[in-house]
Amino acid sequence: MTIITLTTDFGWRDPFVGVMKGVILGINRHVHLVDLTHEIAPHDVLEGALALEAAVPFFPPGTIHVAVVDPGVGSDRRALGLAARGQTFVGPDNGLFTFLLSEPGWRAAALENLAYALPSLSRTFHGRDRFAPAAAHLSRGVSLDSLGPPATDLVQLRWPAGHREGERLVGEVVHIDRFGNLITSVRTDDVESLGPPDAVAVEVAGWLILGLSRSYVDRRAGEPGAIVGSSQ
Amino acid sequence: MTIITLTTDFGWRDPFVGVMKGVILGINRHVHLVDLTHEIAPHDVLEGALALEAAVPFFPPGTIHVAVVDPGVGSDRRALGLAARGQTFVGPDNGLFTFLLSEPGWRAAALENLAYALPSLSRTFHGRDRFAPAAAHLSRGVSLDSLGPPATDLVQLRWPAGHREGERLVGEVVHIDRFGNLITSVRTDDVESLGPPDAVAVEVAGWLILGLSRSYVDRRAGEPGAIVGSSQ
Amino acid sequence: MTIITLTTDFGWRDPFVGVMKGVILGINRHVHLVDLTHEIAPHDVLEGALALEAAVPFFPPGTIHVAVVDPGVGSDRRALGLAARGQTFVGPDNGLFTFLLSEPGWRAAALENLAYALPSLSRTFHGRDRFAPAAAHLSRGVSLDSLGPPATDLVQLRWPAGHREGERLVGEVVHIDRFGNLITSVRTDDVESLGPPDAVAVEVAGWLILGLSRSYVDRRAGEPGAIVGSSQ
Repeated sequence: MTIITLTTDFGWRDPFVGVMKGVILGINRHVHLVDLTHEIAPHDVLEGALALEAAVPFFPPGTIHVAVVDPGVGSDRRALGLAARGQTFVGPDNGLFTFLLSEPGWRAAALENLAYALPSLSRTFHGRDRFAPAAAHLSRGVSLDSLGPPATDLVQLRWPAGHREGERLVGEVVHIDRFGNLITSVRTDDVESLGPPDAVAVEVAGWLILGLSRSYVDRRAGEPGAIVGSSQ
Repeated sequence: MTIITLTTDFGWRDPFVGVMKGVILGINRHVHLVDLTHEIAPHDVLEGALALEAAVPFFPPGTIHVAVVDPGVGSDRRALGLAARGQTFVGPDNGLFTFLLSEPGWRAAALENLAYALPSLSRTFHGRDRFAPAAAHLSRGVSLDSLGPPATDLVQLRWPAGHREGERLVGEVVHIDRFGNLITSVRTDDVESLGPPDAVAVEVAGWLILGLSRSYVDRRAGEPGAIVGSSQ
Repeated sequence: MTIITLTTDFGWRDPFVGVMKGVILGINRHVHLVDLTHEIAPHDVLEGALALEAAVPFFPPGTIHVAVVDPGVGSDRRALGLAARGQTFVGPDNGLFTFLLSEPGWRAAALENLAYALPSLSRTFHGRDRFAPAAAHLSRGVSLDSLGPPATDLVQLRWPAGHREGERLVGEVVHIDRFGNLITSVRTDDVESLGPPDAVAVEVAGWLILGLSRSYVDRRAGEPGAIVGSSQ
């Protein structure tokens, strides 16, 4: 029973996500469907890519991830299948998969074989007509190569990353989560290389925070704190 | 493994939808549960019906759709099971299924057989007590006829539809989706009968839009555009 | 196919819930995952507990409920597995399970056996690292006792409950649902003991409502009404 995850900017109000699931289950009933998020800000490809980057390492090998944040739908942007890190990814070629391309060993196909799309391909909803069917066929054992010709030179986003400036790590806030945490582009490993948690200071938006908290309850209410997050 | 979809105005904050799933799985573990939407505006039966109309054609034969937008719960409004277009529908008799009734061949039953409801029937939550159990029993092979006596004269909504006035198609905006698209009641086939895309003009709320876009990227940012949507 | 439900304050925008599902399915593919709610107000343990209390009775015996409303994550608050009423519960020891503890017969374990957690335990996301894996292992037949030593003296919340004052039942509003219903701590049985529905008056926030409605359509629009709800 293959896992297929879905990541979109479709929201939950319209039945777009449910329709994609109907298409998948019409092709292969023997799958586990998991929603990663459908609340990506409309057309925010980087937010979608960051959500995938956070989630993908926690899925088992063989998982298929469908990602549709697709402002270019209906234009000549390519549609992709991509094999990387033992998992498979399906979505538009617009940078959603940038984080998977830094290591060699990935392989991609342009989804040009219409035998694996819905017969009537709309100009506005490739999540339903092209990406969902491709994922469902992959889950039945269709090979990536069957979906279309090899694709190289994939679109890549400028990826936010922390960098060292002398004794300092400089990064940026890339996301604010539901709890009000400001998520930065600074990596855990790099923070740990700075020294013990009590000796680290964090400067953000004019605040200076001395020391890293070990848990949220370490802070006084209303007081900003810094903590190493849970992403890998 | 039968697919059962759920469409409600319950939202995601309260555990109402989860409870319906618990009831279904308590009766039949061997189903695929798919959420179409639970963000229908409270008591907006037409919005629920339009969501179903958009989604149903993309589900395989044999799918069971439970729809609960039910302002009349606890009154004497009927509860229905309905077979149409090779799929089955369960919900209140308030017009949610209007779009299925225009073609002959449908068949309905009033859900009066309490053997297929929860033992304790509340006055406010028939999604849990009556519709979820009925759908679960249908998925186990219980026949529509077993659920209760035949139902005819179902409640129907005034259905929004485009109509031709000379050289013009006149319709109405029936929905605004998450991306800001104004969804109209004008049908694709009718638009195509008007002539080539470049020769069509769209008038809406005082705007005049010349020509139909082929994709969203055809427009300049901030400029209104018209495009044929993805509904069937 | 064991049912595992998820109740959190994580919201749907971040992929936290999807990640928990990835972890569970990586350990046991043969489960049904059901979302109860992820819209609990951040850190509102009582709201989470009330959602569980409303939902749990409608799930079949053997269901496993994972609940993560966890302001104390990363501190020394205990992590629990709890067997009660024929179902199993996994989450922090902060009062989420108060409603299960009033009857004898429950049994709890502190989740200290790291063999049933993810290898790398973060300080901020035990839903992923500790609770999801524990639930998945339980669903594979691992015993509660294997997860860690017995736990007693569980944290309990002050639980809202109606009480009688002479001819009156006094309770409090504990929740407002999506439809604008004010949910009170007064129990159905107690209301029914007051007398016939027409003879009951409800006072709330300066309003006096005479008689209980039998359904929502009994009221005039804009007029407050009182109705017996659907919780058990």
